[in-house]
Amino acid sequence: MRLLTKDLNDHVGEDVRVEGWLHKKRLLGGLTFINLRDRGGIVQAVIKDKSEVDKLKGLHIGTVLALEGKVVSESRAPGGIELHDTKIEIMVPVTQEPPVEIDKPLSHRPENLDTLFEHRSIGLRNVSEAKVFLVRSVLLKLIRQFLYDHDFVEIQTPKLVANAAEGGAEVFKLDYFGKQASLAQSPQLYKQVMVGVFERVFEIGPAFRAEPSATTRHVSEVTMLDIEMAFIKDHDDVLNMVQDLLYYVLTKVWEQQADTLRELKAPELVLKTPFPRYSMQNIHELYGEANKKDMSGEIDLTPDEERWICEYAKEHDGCEAVFATDLPKSKMKFYHMSKDDNSARSADLLFRGLELATVPQREHRYDVLTEQMKGSGISSDDPAYKFYLEAFKHGLPPHGGCGFGVDRLVEKTIGLGNIKEAILFPRDINRLTP
Amino acid sequence: MRLLTKDLNDHVGEDVRVEGWLHKKRLLGGLTFINLRDRGGIVQAVIKDKSEVDKLKGLHIGTVLALEGKVVSESRAPGGIELHDTKIEIMVPVTQEPPVEIDKPLSHRPENLDTLFEHRSIGLRNVSEAKVFLVRSVLLKLIRQFLYDHDFVEIQTPKLVANAAEGGAEVFKLDYFGKQASLAQSPQLYKQVMVGVFERVFEIGPAFRAEPSATTRHVSEVTMLDIEMAFIKDHDDVLNMVQDLLYYVLTKVWEQQADTLRELKAPELVLKTPFPRYSMQNIHELYGEANKKDMSGEIDLTPDEERWICEYAKEHDGCEAVFATDLPKSKMKFYHMSKDDNSARSADLLFRGLELATVPQREHRYDVLTEQMKGSGISSDDPAYKFYLEAFKHGLPPHGGCGFGVDRLVEKTIGLGNIKEAILFPRDINRLTP
Repeated sequence: MRLLTKDLNDHVGEDVRVEGWLHKKRLLGGLTFINLRDRGGIVQAVIKDKSEVDKLKGLHIGTVLALEGKVVSESRAPGGIELHDTKIEIMVPVTQEPPVEIDKPLSHRPENLDTLFEHRSIGLRNVSEAKVFLVRSVLLKLIRQFLYDHDFVEIQTPKLVANAAEGGAEVFKLDYFGKQASLAQSPQLYKQVMVGVFERVFEIGPAFRAEPSATTRHVSEVTMLDIEMAFIKDHDDVLNMVQDLLYYVLTKVWEQQADTLRELKAPELVLKTPFPRYSMQNIHELYGEANKKDMSGEIDLTPDEERWICEYAKEHDGCEAVFATDLPKSKMKFYHMSKDDNSARSADLLFRGLELATVPQREHRYDVLTEQMKGSGISSDDPAYKFYLEAFKHGLPPHGGCGFGVDRLVEKTIGLGNIKEAILFPRDINRLTP
Repeated sequence: MRLLTKDLNDHVGEDVRVEGWLHKKRLLGGLTFINLRDRGGIVQAVIKDKSEVDKLKGLHIGTVLALEGKVVSESRAPGGIELHDTKIEIMVPVTQEPPVEIDKPLSHRPENLDTLFEHRSIGLRNVSEAKVFLVRSVLLKLIRQFLYDHDFVEIQTPKLVANAAEGGAEVFKLDYFGKQASLAQSPQLYKQVMVGVFERVFEIGPAFRAEPSATTRHVSEVTMLDIEMAFIKDHDDVLNMVQDLLYYVLTKVWEQQADTLRELKAPELVLKTPFPRYSMQNIHELYGEANKKDMSGEIDLTPDEERWICEYAKEHDGCEAVFATDLPKSKMKFYHMSKDDNSARSADLLFRGLELATVPQREHRYDVLTEQMKGSGISSDDPAYKFYLEAFKHGLPPHGGCGFGVDRLVEKTIGLGNIKEAILFPRDINRLTP
């Protein structure tokens, strides 16, 4: 029976069988040492018999093997054990060298990102590379756990839509049985409608943006966590929920995966609740003063301000996550609620220099909403918005939520340099495969 | 402070505040009775004061309200309690009647499905209708729980792809920065590549089919559960895993949600492991005999055979889930493994008359795979398949898995008549909104 390498410590002295991939092979003092990788990790095996060594002739990394041998304590071996008297069974032979190195820590990978993505199927077999996506799957599990615990219902909304929620040019269009359809940029309209049913809903799914930019921040397909909650007293209720979610997820992932995160050289977490909250205006002033710059012409935060305020808050407030509040009204979406003449009831959640989410209260009053739609150039008679407005006409309570970038969260949790490194098979303006 | 209606039983004799939607209003013996709906359920309130009753004048179902009153035991009220001496605060007034009835059980809804979907935002406020999607979210949670417990890693693969896994006409195409892209029909190629990394992976996400049919079975956007597992001994390993998953999910949902399922008139579960397994040929013979029909010309199972074999197995084997094994080789996909000259190592999982999943072993041998691709008219030099074949060239162990229809599972668990009733906002050839 097959055992996993991670369980071999419980079988010292026993004869066992493991199955996995040839991960490394070397000759040392007349002995052949091989590393075998399976989903549990890596084990080292010592091969003495020439007839066994011969079985590996002409075979390369990636060859699928079964090994039978005795588990022996060996402090110099990875994991403290190794296999002796090893017999080899070749399950799937590989007769070519791998196109990329798969036995280096992340920080030592020699290839540039393009080479890496070109051979992604193989590069991910690097144990460190794979751990990025183990952390990702743990983060997603923790997100769901928090939301279940807070009475949120999971929903799936359509990605083929008649209209993009926010309009704009960055929408993929396609032919839908003779009609024009768009790929959803977000579940915005649908999730708002659904608070009329469940009060609290969430969705984790793909969102599509025809971003014509090639940067470390832009991809055309992202994984979004969308949250929406009703019967809020005020905007603070929403900020607190999103804050508590991020705090839970990050502290738990460090509880459960500290070794993995340190192996990936993830920065240690500096976080506490409540997250510091600075108004946009306040950030412009603080940053301007500290950097001797005149920020009075700026509306949005510049990327450098986003980076700076997180550093500032880390130092002054002991927290790397910050809410930039009172976002400018001039940049407000039609479905946000305004606060006063200049600002919206909306805040950006920044973490380690990057915006993870925009967290607004929604405009739930039918008359004000249709007025704001008009201001955005959308007619309230547009049939694509009929289902949306109907929900407001028949009663939606005060509500708010956010679209939260899952890929960005993974990137910043681990401290990767590029959002694409947090995505298995990223899509950008130049890349549609693999 | 707001309480949820479901928690009021713990507050008999106390003055409480609830917030929710006006769900029903009637006059009885000079008193006004209203039902208030929140995410916890429904509570009945008695309004005596004329000044309070007057606040509701001209207001309709859907009006968002806060009620303050005393919780009183009352065996005739839903849930055994009601609110007395109720004061009303109007939070969001609604001045029009709802476009669809929302106070009927599912089986009594008067509207046809088209009307229902036209006003989906409001129709879902029907408490029974909403419970379909509560059950759906519980099913998804249970699926993930089983897969986490069996060492599967959650992945997200791109929906924008250069090629559809299976080719064919039923693919949505779109312009991708000047190149042609397709919407993924399934994560097939990606999940197979990923077993080379994690051995066991799963994804729950949308899949797109440009189905030009308008039936109770066809929609153009579905939610698929994709599973893939490596280092299997044989095809049975895969069948057993999928069987155990379905058994776990269905028995648990009945443990956790029996009341809800009975309220929705879901058929009682008749299930046991191992699920009966009948070869395709065997089903043709059994069905032909029982129904005095000549099935010798049939390759696939007919819909009536799918229905019949599930009934047969329920009666003879005490199990409503059946594997139809040894699917015909002539219908095999290039990435399936053949069994002999006539059949593939593939089985359909049928449940209550509907195919939930096709469960094959994959062809993992590079040479055989490229041969089979050629047979399907796909060149192994096609750049869109490069990443896929590279994974095999560098060693993929024996593996298998399935694409499992989540919408179909919801449909059949509850006993709905149409897949669209299991989807919040279904998409078909005629429907792109809401």
